[in-house]
Amino acid sequence: MSSDDPTRTAVCILGLGLIGGSLLRAMSVNGRNAFGYNRSATTVDAAIASGHDASTDLEATLRRAAELDAVIVLATPVTALRAVLPAVVEYAPNNLLTDVVSVKESVARLIAELHPEARYVGGHPMAGTSESGWEATVSTLFDGAMWMLTTEDDTNAADWLTVAAIALDAGSQVVPAAADSHDRAVAAISHLPHLTANATAVVGAGESELALSLAAGSFRDGTRVAGTAPALQRAMLEANSTALLNALSETIDRLTQARDELRERGTVEVLVDDGHRARQAYEHIATGARQPISGVTVGAPGWAQEMRRQAHRAKVWRG
Amino acid sequence: MSSDDPTRTAVCILGLGLIGGSLLRAMSVNGRNAFGYNRSATTVDAAIASGHDASTDLEATLRRAAELDAVIVLATPVTALRAVLPAVVEYAPNNLLTDVVSVKESVARLIAELHPEARYVGGHPMAGTSESGWEATVSTLFDGAMWMLTTEDDTNAADWLTVAAIALDAGSQVVPAAADSHDRAVAAISHLPHLTANATAVVGAGESELALSLAAGSFRDGTRVAGTAPALQRAMLEANSTALLNALSETIDRLTQARDELRERGTVEVLVDDGHRARQAYEHIATGARQPISGVTVGAPGWAQEMRRQAHRAKVWRG
Repeated sequence: MSSDDPTRTAVCILGLGLIGGSLLRAMSVNGRNAFGYNRSATTVDAAIASGHDASTDLEATLRRAAELDAVIVLATPVTALRAVLPAVVEYAPNNLLTDVVSVKESVARLIAELHPEARYVGGHPMAGTSESGWEATVSTLFDGAMWMLTTEDDTNAADWLTVAAIALDAGSQVVPAAADSHDRAVAAISHLPHLTANATAVVGAGESELALSLAAGSFRDGTRVAGTAPALQRAMLEANSTALLNALSETIDRLTQARDELRERGTVEVLVDDGHRARQAYEHIATGARQPISGVTVGAPGWAQEMRRQAHRAKVWRG
Repeated sequence: MSSDDPTRTAVCILGLGLIGGSLLRAMSVNGRNAFGYNRSATTVDAAIASGHDASTDLEATLRRAAELDAVIVLATPVTALRAVLPAVVEYAPNNLLTDVVSVKESVARLIAELHPEARYVGGHPMAGTSESGWEATVSTLFDGAMWMLTTEDDTNAADWLTVAAIALDAGSQVVPAAADSHDRAVAAISHLPHLTANATAVVGAGESELALSLAAGSFRDGTRVAGTAPALQRAMLEANSTALLNALSETIDRLTQARDELRERGTVEVLVDDGHRARQAYEHIATGARQPISGVTVGAPGWAQEMRRQAHRAKVWRG
């Protein structure tokens, strides 16, 4: 029942929160055979009421995935994977797996432990809001987003293409990376901003109600992600603790240098100049037209290494 | 030539950057006699081309302000005040002064030093963008913003009402506060977020180009104010160094505690929980309907103290 055309493969999504639910919507819009599982009946009822194919029965969902040779997308919080993977081994052991979790090394370790025979290509769509749950889902969540796919020297090319087709169908551009590079990158640009946002929020609210009353754009934007549900923040950050510790230590060092400079010389010149340059470098990449990865045939010798090399120069794969 | 109606007082704005220029636009929209000075001919030409009344001649502008008994709004960067105030003393010594600078104690000290006889009520509209200069000005910049007015026990009630009328005309709500409380508040909710934004930007950009390539909402919003021109950031932050040092030290302490907790117990629970609560407290104030300050007659005994007391409970003065 499997299709040879990777753009027609059925998609089975485990977990229908913001990311998984939005992916179910996006795949349905694209005419894929897409269906999902969620533990909560409320979520499943809401998905069905929106015209989607969803169930609270994990076993039945996985049996159906096995029958259709669907790609299984792990979209639960990372903390729930330990509960879900044994059922995958039991009911859909041969299916291709991917995930949309924000860390890759710890997920890969967990899969190696619980499902050592798995065909697995990790993924991480760089999309989200402070909202969570089915109510926040939209089919356009991934439009124009960067979608990281783990691209290791031993990654199976056909499986990679099948998962890449999901990302492209959802409107994203693919950024190939090794799991460890990805985890260091997201520690710096996603997990660390959560910690600085939380610390900034704490200091502002601790100052006075007058302070919160005067708070405007810099506080609103700088603390936005502190509004994400604490359990989701913790699941994400704590699963990437090694890389996050490094990024956090560097941040503390920079802020401590700024404090010393301000105390001793009355200036914050170094941090502000470096920060402004860094922000400009980001804007240059974020607002510029991304160059496509070129001259690589997926599956040819050295393809994964060449993909990663070009991605490190901010290029993207568009199929 | 002065008017007894504070809502008709002429307004002379010194400095036509984002804040001063937007105020010139807002006052003109309201039919005030509003005119401005800027050092740069390019800015003045652009203001005139937009139909506004502007000049590069500081002496002539101030002589006209004196003749009209206009309120003079100091809207230059704080670092330029030392150059501008002697001209005010020379050509418009009796005019009521206000300012739109983001710190209040250091401005008050400077005015006490250079213009000890000044009639002065400090102000700080909590509005801005990462943009700067005349091109970024809009008449609606202050719509719905909180506009802090220094409200000390010896503040002159008539002068306070005249300056408050400008804030209300611009569409803002007035938050009365003492200069020192204001400076501690903005250190926490405006100046500190600049430092955390800069540090976050530096760590993200320093990690890898891959990291910047994957950066999405949390990095974009968390580093936005690092995009403000470094000279403007420095002028603002360095003028509030004492309060900022306290807020920064507290931030470093919180991040260091989070690092220890993550290293030793694998969790960021305390910071994330506290941060989420703090963000919710902010959202509650920012999105709620603000209660008006009530039961205060400006000029009655104890009016300033009562205004401050109510502002500390997040109430606003709407006239």
